[in-house]
Amino acid sequence: MALIVHKYGGTSMGSVERIRNVARRIAKWHRAGHQMMVVPSAMAGETNRLLELAFSISAQPEPRELDMIAATGEQVSIGLLSLALKALGVCACSYAGWQVPIKTDGTFSKARIIEIDGARVRRDLEAGRIAVIAGFQGVDDANNITTLGRGGSDTSALALAAAFAADECLIYTDVDGVYTADPRIVDQARRLECITCEEMLEMASLGSKVLQTRSVEFAGKYRVKTRVLSSLSDPLMPLEDEMRSGTLMTFEEDQTMEQVVVSGIAHQRDEARIAVLSVPDTPGIAYQILGPVARAHIDIDMIVQNQSVEGRTDFTFTVARSDYARAMDILNASVKAQIGARQVIGDPQVSKVSVIGVGMRSHVGVARTMFRTLAEEGINIQMISTSEIKISVLIDEKYMELAVRALHKAFELERG
Amino acid sequence: MALIVHKYGGTSMGSVERIRNVARRIAKWHRAGHQMMVVPSAMAGETNRLLELAFSISAQPEPRELDMIAATGEQVSIGLLSLALKALGVCACSYAGWQVPIKTDGTFSKARIIEIDGARVRRDLEAGRIAVIAGFQGVDDANNITTLGRGGSDTSALALAAAFAADECLIYTDVDGVYTADPRIVDQARRLECITCEEMLEMASLGSKVLQTRSVEFAGKYRVKTRVLSSLSDPLMPLEDEMRSGTLMTFEEDQTMEQVVVSGIAHQRDEARIAVLSVPDTPGIAYQILGPVARAHIDIDMIVQNQSVEGRTDFTFTVARSDYARAMDILNASVKAQIGARQVIGDPQVSKVSVIGVGMRSHVGVARTMFRTLAEEGINIQMISTSEIKISVLIDEKYMELAVRALHKAFELERG
Repeated sequence: MALIVHKYGGTSMGSVERIRNVARRIAKWHRAGHQMMVVPSAMAGETNRLLELAFSISAQPEPRELDMIAATGEQVSIGLLSLALKALGVCACSYAGWQVPIKTDGTFSKARIIEIDGARVRRDLEAGRIAVIAGFQGVDDANNITTLGRGGSDTSALALAAAFAADECLIYTDVDGVYTADPRIVDQARRLECITCEEMLEMASLGSKVLQTRSVEFAGKYRVKTRVLSSLSDPLMPLEDEMRSGTLMTFEEDQTMEQVVVSGIAHQRDEARIAVLSVPDTPGIAYQILGPVARAHIDIDMIVQNQSVEGRTDFTFTVARSDYARAMDILNASVKAQIGARQVIGDPQVSKVSVIGVGMRSHVGVARTMFRTLAEEGINIQMISTSEIKISVLIDEKYMELAVRALHKAFELERG
Repeated sequence: MALIVHKYGGTSMGSVERIRNVARRIAKWHRAGHQMMVVPSAMAGETNRLLELAFSISAQPEPRELDMIAATGEQVSIGLLSLALKALGVCACSYAGWQVPIKTDGTFSKARIIEIDGARVRRDLEAGRIAVIAGFQGVDDANNITTLGRGGSDTSALALAAAFAADECLIYTDVDGVYTADPRIVDQARRLECITCEEMLEMASLGSKVLQTRSVEFAGKYRVKTRVLSSLSDPLMPLEDEMRSGTLMTFEEDQTMEQVVVSGIAHQRDEARIAVLSVPDTPGIAYQILGPVARAHIDIDMIVQNQSVEGRTDFTFTVARSDYARAMDILNASVKAQIGARQVIGDPQVSKVSVIGVGMRSHVGVARTMFRTLAEEGINIQMISTSEIKISVLIDEKYMELAVRALHKAFELERG
């Protein structure tokens, strides 16, 4: 008997029939003798509906009240899923975040989990009941409802798995695992049976959207055995098949990944590039440029600063395309004059393509293969950034699919 | 400076624009210097939507999960109303039932309020913040969310007013007060400026639907000054006019009601009559007949037992029309044979009409006038029941409007 955590996304919970299917799957696991904790998201579209209501009342809604409103989506889900389980003859009990309690700090809309008190839930588990726990939400020291930010249900599931020392955390989603590239772009893309936590982290931060970045950090920190798999498969498929499906996140990288240099090609379409030209190359200049942008809650991704020439340099960075206009306004309105830059230019039609793999730490040839492949396709590289296990390039958006396909082929990812 | 409780029904909270109007009204009261507690219901239709979801998953949903789901309707409302207040520049803070906390017993779906801990809310009030508190819900000893049953937000508002010793509780609804009869039936129906708590109780139990019965009991027990008034009036109307509008529930009956014998004519359309004929007149017979009906959660209203003849009697009672078929099934399936009744007959097309007034305690002529009036209109009386301040008759549904109009005229209620 193992302790298993299941997490189901909004699409899996999207209708009464889908909720029934989720219940059938959980009941199957439970009947196989496992202790079960389940974390469902709000029904698809529900969180947006609630937030739209809030924003139609106030253009700048108070985060505390937003969380009060948004948390109801998951509360409805846990009730419905518990009912569906009971209709199958399985004992289940729902928990709002504050009932567990899942204690967080007081940063509304982006709260961080501090502590989970497992006593009450553990009693339920030991009595053979399935604990159905609201994802995305918690409670702060002052008894306010908090939410963890978009995709926070993944974090809830992994935090619960860590707190209860669960044997495995299964993240059910609308894809059947992590692929070597987006299958909608690359026909030959292949599902990875396993992936290291660090690779998953790069995938998540690169917009592959399989798992929220913070939830992967959680899994890594507490070494939670985590599997990403499809909620669209037959809920009554044999358990042993299901336990081998999807993609498993691993922590013993050397053992499982010995042969593999590059695991996958990730991309992020909706990027925008901004360049502040000819700024004085003095200490603090990066802060003077990026500080006002960050204060407007605009996330900055790649940052590049050129070698300075005659005391002046160019400073380039990327933001999400949806933040482009606002970032340009901020720079042109005040920053440009303050720092004495010559010009602020930008391009909102760029995309990022990345080659990811823990194996590249010890292989120098990855960058060379990547740049040669793009050159052969006539694709100009606008920016480059690297980490230990990733090389990212910024290119014109219109070449993005071409770049992903060419790189997938160049690294022979279709072979496995 | 007074401490005022406002309660708004689902219709008043039915859209973003209506919520804004509610906020404008509250802000007006707050700016006049009052401490404000506000109890909104779920947005119109929301509770039904949630319950339908639950019942589409399970024909017999667990009450605990139903409450978990249904409570979200009010949670959304308190968040939205707080946002609307803040958008007007007024400080407000929302509270779910468990955050106050409003402690109840553990009877899911029909919980009773046991205790309200006012410490946290009082701090907010003293800091000049408006406390926006979810109606209809509470929390039991084991930290489960409970709900108070349909119309429970009225009870929440009056319980809070009692616990905080509020100066007045204003129940905003879609009617502008209590009338001498339903204005849709009697053109000359007149709004009552005040009504005693006991009269209100009879009105509520007779389906006038202005206030839930239990909430009136609460108001009476704790002598909460309660006013029923319209949420459809101009939210910015002068405060002194608003404080005189609607109908005030009073407790000093002798003082204010000295002249009035009959206050109003109430009716309840959807009744059904069931008669169990020729049953042995033995101790326990009423329990044997009504016990199985009550156990099926069917509410029984009027009960009449005839004088027995040769050791046998007829036993007649009424139920809501929607429960008629089920009640007949229960009686015919087992009860009839068990007690040796000759026959079970019924009529689902009957209505109840009542004359209500605290003054009738000391006036013998009310019954006589009532029966004479109905006789003159050719209306047959099927059952009669009386209380200290009420006489009710059951009649054929098709005469209901006629009876209400004739009685309104006979007691000269149009005069005031």
